[in-house]
Amino acid sequence: MIRFNSDYTEGCHTSILEKLVETNMEQTAGYGEDEYCGQARELIRKACGDERADVHFLVGGTQTNVTVISAALKHYQGVITAKTGHINVHETGALEACGHKCLCIETPDGKLTAEQIAAYTDAHFADESFEHMVQPKMVYISNPTEIGTIYKKAELEAIYQVCKKRGLYLFMDGARLGYGLMCKENDLTLSDITANTDVFYIGGTKVGALFGEAVVIRNEELKKDFRYNIKQRGGMLAKGRLLGIQFLTLFEENRYFDISAHAARLAEKLKDELIKMGVKFYINSPTNQQFPILPDAVLAELKKKYSFAYQERMDETHSAVRFCTCWATKEENVDMLLADIQKLLKADD
Amino acid sequence: MIRFNSDYTEGCHTSILEKLVETNMEQTAGYGEDEYCGQARELIRKACGDERADVHFLVGGTQTNVTVISAALKHYQGVITAKTGHINVHETGALEACGHKCLCIETPDGKLTAEQIAAYTDAHFADESFEHMVQPKMVYISNPTEIGTIYKKAELEAIYQVCKKRGLYLFMDGARLGYGLMCKENDLTLSDITANTDVFYIGGTKVGALFGEAVVIRNEELKKDFRYNIKQRGGMLAKGRLLGIQFLTLFEENRYFDISAHAARLAEKLKDELIKMGVKFYINSPTNQQFPILPDAVLAELKKKYSFAYQERMDETHSAVRFCTCWATKEENVDMLLADIQKLLKADD
Amino acid sequence: MIRFNSDYTEGCHTSILEKLVETNMEQTAGYGEDEYCGQARELIRKACGDERADVHFLVGGTQTNVTVISAALKHYQGVITAKTGHINVHETGALEACGHKCLCIETPDGKLTAEQIAAYTDAHFADESFEHMVQPKMVYISNPTEIGTIYKKAELEAIYQVCKKRGLYLFMDGARLGYGLMCKENDLTLSDITANTDVFYIGGTKVGALFGEAVVIRNEELKKDFRYNIKQRGGMLAKGRLLGIQFLTLFEENRYFDISAHAARLAEKLKDELIKMGVKFYINSPTNQQFPILPDAVLAELKKKYSFAYQERMDETHSAVRFCTCWATKEENVDMLLADIQKLLKADD
Amino acid sequence: MIRFNSDYTEGCHTSILEKLVETNMEQTAGYGEDEYCGQARELIRKACGDERADVHFLVGGTQTNVTVISAALKHYQGVITAKTGHINVHETGALEACGHKCLCIETPDGKLTAEQIAAYTDAHFADESFEHMVQPKMVYISNPTEIGTIYKKAELEAIYQVCKKRGLYLFMDGARLGYGLMCKENDLTLSDITANTDVFYIGGTKVGALFGEAVVIRNEELKKDFRYNIKQRGGMLAKGRLLGIQFLTLFEENRYFDISAHAARLAEKLKDELIKMGVKFYINSPTNQQFPILPDAVLAELKKKYSFAYQERMDETHSAVRFCTCWATKEENVDMLLADIQKLLKADD
Repeated sequence: MIRFNSDYTEGCHTSILEKLVETNMEQTAGYGEDEYCGQARELIRKACGDERADVHFLVGGTQTNVTVISAALKHYQGVITAKTGHINVHETGALEACGHKCLCIETPDGKLTAEQIAAYTDAHFADESFEHMVQPKMVYISNPTEIGTIYKKAELEAIYQVCKKRGLYLFMDGARLGYGLMCKENDLTLSDITANTDVFYIGGTKVGALFGEAVVIRNEELKKDFRYNIKQRGGMLAKGRLLGIQFLTLFEENRYFDISAHAARLAEKLKDELIKMGVKFYINSPTNQQFPILPDAVLAELKKKYSFAYQERMDETHSAVRFCTCWATKEENVDMLLADIQKLLKADD
Repeated sequence: MIRFNSDYTEGCHTSILEKLVETNMEQTAGYGEDEYCGQARELIRKACGDERADVHFLVGGTQTNVTVISAALKHYQGVITAKTGHINVHETGALEACGHKCLCIETPDGKLTAEQIAAYTDAHFADESFEHMVQPKMVYISNPTEIGTIYKKAELEAIYQVCKKRGLYLFMDGARLGYGLMCKENDLTLSDITANTDVFYIGGTKVGALFGEAVVIRNEELKKDFRYNIKQRGGMLAKGRLLGIQFLTLFEENRYFDISAHAARLAEKLKDELIKMGVKFYINSPTNQQFPILPDAVLAELKKKYSFAYQERMDETHSAVRFCTCWATKEENVDMLLADIQKLLKADD
Repeated sequence: MIRFNSDYTEGCHTSILEKLVETNMEQTAGYGEDEYCGQARELIRKACGDERADVHFLVGGTQTNVTVISAALKHYQGVITAKTGHINVHETGALEACGHKCLCIETPDGKLTAEQIAAYTDAHFADESFEHMVQPKMVYISNPTEIGTIYKKAELEAIYQVCKKRGLYLFMDGARLGYGLMCKENDLTLSDITANTDVFYIGGTKVGALFGEAVVIRNEELKKDFRYNIKQRGGMLAKGRLLGIQFLTLFEENRYFDISAHAARLAEKLKDELIKMGVKFYINSPTNQQFPILPDAVLAELKKKYSFAYQERMDETHSAVRFCTCWATKEENVDMLLADIQKLLKADD
Repeated sequence: MIRFNSDYTEGCHTSILEKLVETNMEQTAGYGEDEYCGQARELIRKACGDERADVHFLVGGTQTNVTVISAALKHYQGVITAKTGHINVHETGALEACGHKCLCIETPDGKLTAEQIAAYTDAHFADESFEHMVQPKMVYISNPTEIGTIYKKAELEAIYQVCKKRGLYLFMDGARLGYGLMCKENDLTLSDITANTDVFYIGGTKVGALFGEAVVIRNEELKKDFRYNIKQRGGMLAKGRLLGIQFLTLFEENRYFDISAHAARLAEKLKDELIKMGVKFYINSPTNQQFPILPDAVLAELKKKYSFAYQERMDETHSAVRFCTCWATKEENVDMLLADIQKLLKADD
């Protein structure tokens, strides 16, 4: 079985394993207060162009989302999110289990716009029953989104302006951030993101690490006491150095960006070649997740050799599915997949 | 100011006040374990045609919804609701603050259908990522709904069949139940509701009481330890007899139904006369909440004399608003309102 | 059965019922935004000597405690309380259900001291694992306490100094405040309490009202958005005027204090006479709750005629019990109780 | 700096790293549904002597405690724990953040007894206000405890009998389970524990793994839907195979027990030698945590070369501290520590 179903099918980048082996029997302080975490924090601050940013390492995405959002909100406040947002769909209500409501906005492409955020917030405060509704206080965006789309620099800046004017915190979920930053359409840098959000995270789990997400907090209000929140939400790893070592390795020698570029390039190849075959897409994604719409008969055959994720039935004979590339994807497998699809499409004609 | 903005603008039915005065200096046990609560429970059980039902008295609607739903669910379970459901919109996230997600379904009329519930639930369990999503375990319906529509007997029965087959609890919010049961279109009885839900409540706050909601639990699974939940959610009134006395009075001599019928009749009059004037409605409501669409200029004038609730802008010059009748509404005020609207509409022509 | 088991055995002071009858059919705004609430707020501000205080009306004590505390705390913060505090013992974990831990201190008399609070807080921040423990952020004291003792002015001032120095909020639960303020030993006024807490509440349920507690907030930080919290915790009464009318009536003509003085006087009589009979007490309470230690044989007899609360077994043949007086207690019943105890004690000799 | 301050100062057992390197580029399913997790589950079931037990892998201890306990309890239920229990002291209120109260019992040695559990539970249900208090539903014990003591087989059996009779679930926190099982005083086996608890976990983080805890559920009631809870509490590792590979390696060739025995032996050596020097202990611990009481002057010197944890001031010149051994502790370091203490004690004389 060749797996394209997700971007966490392999272990981690070899350099990380090497560093783990090398440092294994060293004794260090626990809970992220070791030297490796310190070095990793420095590298990330530098990459973000903000020497004063707080950087924390957590284990996984759901945990990170819950920790960041619940740390920022009071009990009666909620978070604006696209209806497709990971926090709203695929975290088994982890955020609600912390007491907070997802304030959902329908979007065609998984992205929120500055206008939508402004309109939602203004409507809340204009409503005579405003105290009977959850107060919007934070905006959650994923970049890339859950369906592969990305925010352009102008869009992000506009969103952040709207947020600042209305006293909303802006939080970017960067579980797949590398794959967004290194795709062709992207015009954002880590510095841009740092300057145009209050807090965001750089995903490791899906981008070369065994696990781990690096939270970058720029807004002073959100820095205070953050480690209490990490501990309370179960995210304070005893052997915190494991996270430090991983992010240290990823942010040395441009590694995070190079391996992301690899995945982006293979996804583009996949997309371009499928387009040439006349395949339509569920959404126009420039990143490592591609959502082609294929005949069910073709999918039934493909399934025997490849794993991929089911997205949505499109009509009686076609479904949208998801193929992911990642830092570890082999080009030969993409080529084989393309060849197989082409053959099956012809047979299906 | 003549108030039509809600159905809780006056105090309570005179008989209740009389009974409160009469019993005021009696000494009773607290927390709903007095005789009056006992008698009220008996009357309600009889009215519901179920001698084994558990009946509990709580203070208000939000509290009741939260107590019932959180008592029934495990942490990872949620409640299916129409997007317009009170729990989703107007309770400041009280349910999320207890850890549970509203699983929203869009509906044109504030009502859920058996088909929607079945489809939502079946899709959950068919999804390969089902454990990454909140598990549906309860269905919340309001009758009448937040926009005045009601469930017909066949609809309720179909919903309950779907729920039972899928292991979902069915909970009916009856904040305005009397106004539903006594409107012309209704074909449900309290017994039908008892037999076709697992738990529901009979609203007192909006139907003649100072405050109070009577929860009726038929499903044995939901009966256990319910009073712990009431206490935990702040709903265990020290002087519980106040609730017993109110529901006792309301369920004596058919009072609950008679005063509801009064409100229903005046709402029908309001609706019929507005229709005669050519007024269109936001929704076709057969109950005590009416949502006419009126010119903004007319509304601006009306506002000087009447209070009513704003519902939604319909076009550049028209808005939908809400007028409520209730057990205390004076017919002369409805007549005056109608005359004023007619006059203003003509002037607006 | 003559009831001394609690201070909420009767309805309410007659003046309140009269005012409810008088205003019953008036139409008012809902949710505490009516004129009666406005007037009651003004009277309470005046009584507290703080024209800028925010005053909110809630229904019951558990609800009030939960609303105030959860509004003040972030998720990782907790509240310091005596182990006997109502929030820790008798609210079915309502506070934990909102996510917050009770940080308990053992005390002999139900009271916290400035020294205890300082020591607890300083120990937290001195601990190298401080982030692994709940951060103390609020102090909860009851006055009178759950076992009838009261804070002297000097004690309260010392506590508040300690709190301010350490950035802790001080919250006083005044469920029985009147009975504390009007007992002989007391040297506190409402103004003193307002000036020496961040927030407190004046209990109505146990002091002459049908129900209701008036929250007084002096600290600006705690004022913001408080009504969202009330709604979220189920405390926003639709017919909020009921609370306004009750507190308006209680704070007119010194009523709250006069009826409290009545209860305090009868409790003192009970205590003094029992002491004369040689009865020992569980705790030296100067307020309306008295905790005599009586032979089990005497208690068994008393039970046939009186209700009272069991407190604790003291030895093989004696138990401590609780008798409460209240605004409604009849002196003749206290006299009869005393006579009966005397008779039974002699027989038991 | 030579570290004895905790049992998670090094990375992991070399065999684990080797296996991670070996399997790194394999593609597997995510979220614990891979083959390695399957094999690890089989080995653990075998070691526990229960082929029907459910085995789940989580990342860390706080997360595991919270997930297991909140999965088992309804909102109004709490967990009985020794006051020193990890969940009560060192998890930043993670359990309360899930809505559940710790029902604390004071104990001299960190252990609960069958009698204490029975008495606490019986008192709850005998109290007339039982519904006003959190209902005990689960018992949490740590083995070894937070201060190194262990449960003997007869003690555990007695506790489990009491629990079963009262409908309480018994949960054992085994963060340091290996160090308990392999100490001299121990008479428990994994099979005994499986048979005498409803659920427990086998700690990996402190016993040879990079991270990871293996939850073993025997009680059918607790098995249902457990993975929803893991996901909701942030514990579902995307690359779940990392946990499978680690536990697989630990449970092959008796590794988990052998490396635990190493730590136990070194701790015994430390203890025995210190006793010979006349050192007193805070608690008589037979496991890998040792709590000697030493002169502050000695500790000040030791600190320059060794790290250890501060436990409690004992008198004006002595403090109790904690030294941990673990799977990775070098005997030469223990010997050096002993020599240094001996020298310092003499100098201090």
